[in-house]
Amino acid sequence: MPSTHVDRRDLLRDLLRARELDAALVSNLVNIRYLTGFTGSNAALLVLADGPGPDPGVFCTDGRYDLQAGEEVPDLERVLDRISAPALAARAGRYGVRALGYESHHVTVDGLAALTKAASDAPGPVRMSSLERAVEQLRLVKDHEEIEVLRRACAIADQALAELVAAGGIRAGRTEREVGRDLDNRMLDLGADAPSFATIVATGPNSAIPHHRPADRELATGDLVKLDFGAEYGGYHSDMTRVFVLGEPAGWQREIHELVRAAQRAGREALVVGADVVEVDRAARQVIEKAGYGPQFSHGLGHGVGLEVHEAPTLSSLGAGTLAELTPVTVEPGVYLAGRGGVRIEDTLVVRADGPELLTLTGKDLVAL
Amino acid sequence: MPSTHVDRRDLLRDLLRARELDAALVSNLVNIRYLTGFTGSNAALLVLADGPGPDPGVFCTDGRYDLQAGEEVPDLERVLDRISAPALAARAGRYGVRALGYESHHVTVDGLAALTKAASDAPGPVRMSSLERAVEQLRLVKDHEEIEVLRRACAIADQALAELVAAGGIRAGRTEREVGRDLDNRMLDLGADAPSFATIVATGPNSAIPHHRPADRELATGDLVKLDFGAEYGGYHSDMTRVFVLGEPAGWQREIHELVRAAQRAGREALVVGADVVEVDRAARQVIEKAGYGPQFSHGLGHGVGLEVHEAPTLSSLGAGTLAELTPVTVEPGVYLAGRGGVRIEDTLVVRADGPELLTLTGKDLVAL
Repeated sequence: MPSTHVDRRDLLRDLLRARELDAALVSNLVNIRYLTGFTGSNAALLVLADGPGPDPGVFCTDGRYDLQAGEEVPDLERVLDRISAPALAARAGRYGVRALGYESHHVTVDGLAALTKAASDAPGPVRMSSLERAVEQLRLVKDHEEIEVLRRACAIADQALAELVAAGGIRAGRTEREVGRDLDNRMLDLGADAPSFATIVATGPNSAIPHHRPADRELATGDLVKLDFGAEYGGYHSDMTRVFVLGEPAGWQREIHELVRAAQRAGREALVVGADVVEVDRAARQVIEKAGYGPQFSHGLGHGVGLEVHEAPTLSSLGAGTLAELTPVTVEPGVYLAGRGGVRIEDTLVVRADGPELLTLTGKDLVAL
Repeated sequence: MPSTHVDRRDLLRDLLRARELDAALVSNLVNIRYLTGFTGSNAALLVLADGPGPDPGVFCTDGRYDLQAGEEVPDLERVLDRISAPALAARAGRYGVRALGYESHHVTVDGLAALTKAASDAPGPVRMSSLERAVEQLRLVKDHEEIEVLRRACAIADQALAELVAAGGIRAGRTEREVGRDLDNRMLDLGADAPSFATIVATGPNSAIPHHRPADRELATGDLVKLDFGAEYGGYHSDMTRVFVLGEPAGWQREIHELVRAAQRAGREALVVGADVVEVDRAARQVIEKAGYGPQFSHGLGHGVGLEVHEAPTLSSLGAGTLAELTPVTVEPGVYLAGRGGVRIEDTLVVRADGPELLTLTGKDLVAL
């Protein structure tokens, strides 16, 4: 969708002008993908606020990606240099750039030194200043095409899980690793480009570890089985957590599952346009705190999802800001009882004026297998 | 291997004292794994040059990883804080730290501002200065246990490829994606924790794209089939590239394969303790340049491998330094003919006093399938 990319670069130009910057030097590859469609592993992008032509800018990658860049980014001038961001910083002066925005949340301290040195070779002095996450600001609110792609990513995860359950893939005697690979392969069969992240299969006492890696533990009757996974599709990431139980659930398993489910519902209902992200976290957390399990909910409520599986906004007591329409987020409270087991329930949803749209449609009952 | 981790922290302490730093604030997760064994996704580590006890230091992670950190890092004081590196910067002053080393190649410009602010709350003034890749310097030369793990990672890749070929997995009509997934699954079956990186299956004209992503192109008779892949095992990454041809090879295919093979041999033979990395690149590159294909070898010769699939040293004209004994590196020249096809041949080897040890043992003939 090249026209989309040009539109996004134009929106970035508006931000540049508002901040009195002559250009943006974009080095975060995710932001470069958002602005150009490039999917390789080395690139930098210089977007000029004003300049020759309707879409002034320069794209830089190295020789490995010359052909690919020609296909993916046909509409921008292309420079080949392995040290891509400094190469464009050195060119900025030629375009009359005096105030150059760079990504201070992404560029390392050493990286800034290299950019500053490269820019200092320019004919006139170039002043470097932070872009203050300008591209992330654009990325926060998704367009309808992005949401359609994310919806598909979520549907792949839903269907893969349904197939895994239907095939009896979650059963005593299988290892966590085997269950995880089975789920991953089903997502790939359904068209996912990759799992969104390393799939979490945490069973029995391991389910009390929020981010447990699948290991050689064999599933056994009585286990809680926590699956946290997603599909990457077209660059977008779904994210979902569901918990099953092998055999008849014990009282404590039912209790914490019901509690987390109620908290998750409260969190979803708090996804209102304009809501403070701290209050959204609060809405779910107070349900768990009232039941006396506050210390056992040891992480934030959720996060934005898109080209990254974790992106802005952060729904937690440490977050800041309010929810904008058409922002996809996760809602994922959990309660973890060390040595026994844990429950987390997570959906991917889109904040909308008429209430949140649920993208992960798998049911939330505690299913006994 | 906790004693190994303590030994590594002691070596870091030696570097700190030599640089007149009171402590290292390590925030690069790979370096934290190297120094502690922690495998989670959020952590920071403060290693004190001197202090109470034989191994003075503090480890910080967030609540999600409390249990995991207890198992993986039982021997260090543990602090729970989601904003891990600033939390330790704020504590540094309490331990009398005045000169604090941080990872300027890893910490972002915004990150340094947060560290500096946190450290400024300390009772005395804390001066921040670059660690200048101190932990990477320790990681460059591997110990025998690390090489044993890397050898296993390479053996998994070798065996997976042998099985793929024996099973007829590389054949006309299959898509690049199918071949890649088949290879990945065989590595996982053989005990890999994951592929080292997104496996490259580049066929026909796509083989001229050095880092092509497997797509829906079907393999066809006459194709070059380039596979660049590796196994992650125990945290270490193997990396290997081999090229096959479907049917009888054409003259140009034989020609560039022979050329790349000769260049790769020259590169391997240049892996001598003390050799300048620029000269190692040169040794292989001049073989290709003499044949008139210099511009078609559009990337560096190789890189270090270990806890990262790309790490120091860089074997290229842009690299710096000399080869140390017990440093694993790749040697991977290539020739890419746009629109037609390309060949790259890559091994993982260990630099040794008595000549390089080859860890990827798959043969390098152009095998016709």
